[in-house]
Amino acid sequence: MRRVSKRKLVPKIGILGGGQLARMLCLAAHPLGVECHVLSGNADDPAAQVTPYWQQGHLSDLTEFADRLDLLTFESEFFSVDLIPSTKAYVFPNLKCMSLFQDRLTQKKTLQRFSIPTADFFAVNELIDLEHVSKKFNKNFVLKKRLGGYDGNGTFIYKNLSSLELSSLDLSYGFIAEKLIHFKQECAVMVFRSRNGSVLHYPLVKVQSKDQRCDWVLGPILHKKLNSVLKKIFKMLAELNYVGALGIEFFDTGNELLVNELAPRVHNTGHYSQLALSFDQFQLHLMCGLGLELPRITQLNKAFGMINLIGTDDCEPSLEKTIPALHWYGKKTNREGRKMGHINAVGPSQSAVLRNLKFQRKKIKL
Amino acid sequence: MRRVSKRKLVPKIGILGGGQLARMLCLAAHPLGVECHVLSGNADDPAAQVTPYWQQGHLSDLTEFADRLDLLTFESEFFSVDLIPSTKAYVFPNLKCMSLFQDRLTQKKTLQRFSIPTADFFAVNELIDLEHVSKKFNKNFVLKKRLGGYDGNGTFIYKNLSSLELSSLDLSYGFIAEKLIHFKQECAVMVFRSRNGSVLHYPLVKVQSKDQRCDWVLGPILHKKLNSVLKKIFKMLAELNYVGALGIEFFDTGNELLVNELAPRVHNTGHYSQLALSFDQFQLHLMCGLGLELPRITQLNKAFGMINLIGTDDCEPSLEKTIPALHWYGKKTNREGRKMGHINAVGPSQSAVLRNLKFQRKKIKL
Repeated sequence: MRRVSKRKLVPKIGILGGGQLARMLCLAAHPLGVECHVLSGNADDPAAQVTPYWQQGHLSDLTEFADRLDLLTFESEFFSVDLIPSTKAYVFPNLKCMSLFQDRLTQKKTLQRFSIPTADFFAVNELIDLEHVSKKFNKNFVLKKRLGGYDGNGTFIYKNLSSLELSSLDLSYGFIAEKLIHFKQECAVMVFRSRNGSVLHYPLVKVQSKDQRCDWVLGPILHKKLNSVLKKIFKMLAELNYVGALGIEFFDTGNELLVNELAPRVHNTGHYSQLALSFDQFQLHLMCGLGLELPRITQLNKAFGMINLIGTDDCEPSLEKTIPALHWYGKKTNREGRKMGHINAVGPSQSAVLRNLKFQRKKIKL
Repeated sequence: MRRVSKRKLVPKIGILGGGQLARMLCLAAHPLGVECHVLSGNADDPAAQVTPYWQQGHLSDLTEFADRLDLLTFESEFFSVDLIPSTKAYVFPNLKCMSLFQDRLTQKKTLQRFSIPTADFFAVNELIDLEHVSKKFNKNFVLKKRLGGYDGNGTFIYKNLSSLELSSLDLSYGFIAEKLIHFKQECAVMVFRSRNGSVLHYPLVKVQSKDQRCDWVLGPILHKKLNSVLKKIFKMLAELNYVGALGIEFFDTGNELLVNELAPRVHNTGHYSQLALSFDQFQLHLMCGLGLELPRITQLNKAFGMINLIGTDDCEPSLEKTIPALHWYGKKTNREGRKMGHINAVGPSQSAVLRNLKFQRKKIKL
């Protein structure tokens, strides 16, 4: 009779949130043999459809959810850190980091503390601050809500605001005012730090926005300042004992690479890695939490890219066409501005990749 | 107020069986926005862990399972076709084809009917047949069980059988005797036919077996006879109205490409497509059932391959190392000869790919 040997325990990871980022974390976990548990509000959520271990609930239900897990992570930084109970599960990134990075003011101060280049800024809490800033920046600045902003929500170019809009801004929410940067292009990079201390970064990519949302990404690109910025970033991650994926968005002014924003999680600008790189950002985020030595990353082709599928008001999405490397998020309703899926591509040149991505996107009615 | 538009119904597909092939069909279905339902015996089955729509059950529970689905397909050809009830779901491949191909005798006769090159054979049901065959083939033949054989199970080289083994063979199960072929190498190809009639094939690959099980696959390879064989195969598929993926294993004798076996499903020798091709075999099998026009397949690198992770008796599998393009099947117990996972790779040459695959496999203790 054959002896059935015991298997090492399958690691169990919990994800707070059920959107597309949680969904793709689950899809990356399956081939690694990691059991993915999801806590989210609705059984229709994208991540709820790809794991048997979905639980309906919110932060307040976390204790029971987390205690049977080995690891706990987040698909979004927008939650109240105080509500996370102490748990036996290893939580990553740590709550100190989540708290620092979810607030644009403490995020900017942290960047400053580590001498990481970023646009000048001031805190704005009342009208008098605004008048002060307006003089300092000669009216060329952007107002950003400290908490909860994304895809341009909560961001206002001061000069473009009508006096009515300006007077209806409730400054008591807390804002930062940031010098308006005239940039050549926007770009981004993903960095990772494992619980065992090893780090890696992806190539720098160009990010094209439309209506303040990421439209497409192409890479790899080069920038003479990338290495010096990364060195400071890795120093910051080590000091904060940051663990997991971190998305970094930059303004490229030609000479400088200014950090626009940090996202303490997997990020839209890293989705291309699902097709283009030997390890995708979702696998790596999990590997960071598992404390694995991070591997060398190889690029499977010369150029790569990703294009978002963003919903519109009027059409039903139809999936009858065949699109290679399609990632459809399974959202139950289409809406203007909603990220419904994305398409990845690789090729011999960035222009060929972009042509192909736009050609593929035309096949789908959103 | 934004209007929420209706979405076209998400197609629902059911899979009979919960092993690694069903698991990887689910993983391919998720990014396509296809809802994958699984019927299998055990909640620990590989496919049960990657979909919320798993149901415990067997063929006898099929009616209730199938009637809420749009499509129904199989991860294995070894089931009693008579037990499949009539259902509103579109069943693919059709039951006529499943019945023809699950039985080695009717499979060989079908190959013969379409003049598809294959080794000579005879039906063997009793001892007198065996004596007849033994003379005809001058003792150089293989006995194969008509039903239920896989990975060398149910296959016997006549010359190697002791008289005791021979006398214990219960010929009434039904066997075929097939001329022993002296081949240069084994190879394989995946073909696909959509419900809309469109067809495609993957590149030919070399298959290395060990203990009568697939050990690794490398590709692409060329053979002067491939096109003429494929032409006949596609004629057969059209006449039988076959829909879905079909795995074809060959003996390459140098001059000839003889069909060794047909598998009416996704197949171990096609797993490399998850990394190497623009559409993997699991997506294509689903697209076939959905009736989509099959797309042009592009290869993302010059050479590619796949290596199996096969269980042994004595060790616990450990997943602490990082392996790129790992597919772990999540089986709860390790066993000698059991397929526990596989690794894919691409590279500039087949020798580089094979070196890399063997290097990666060493990281994991099975």
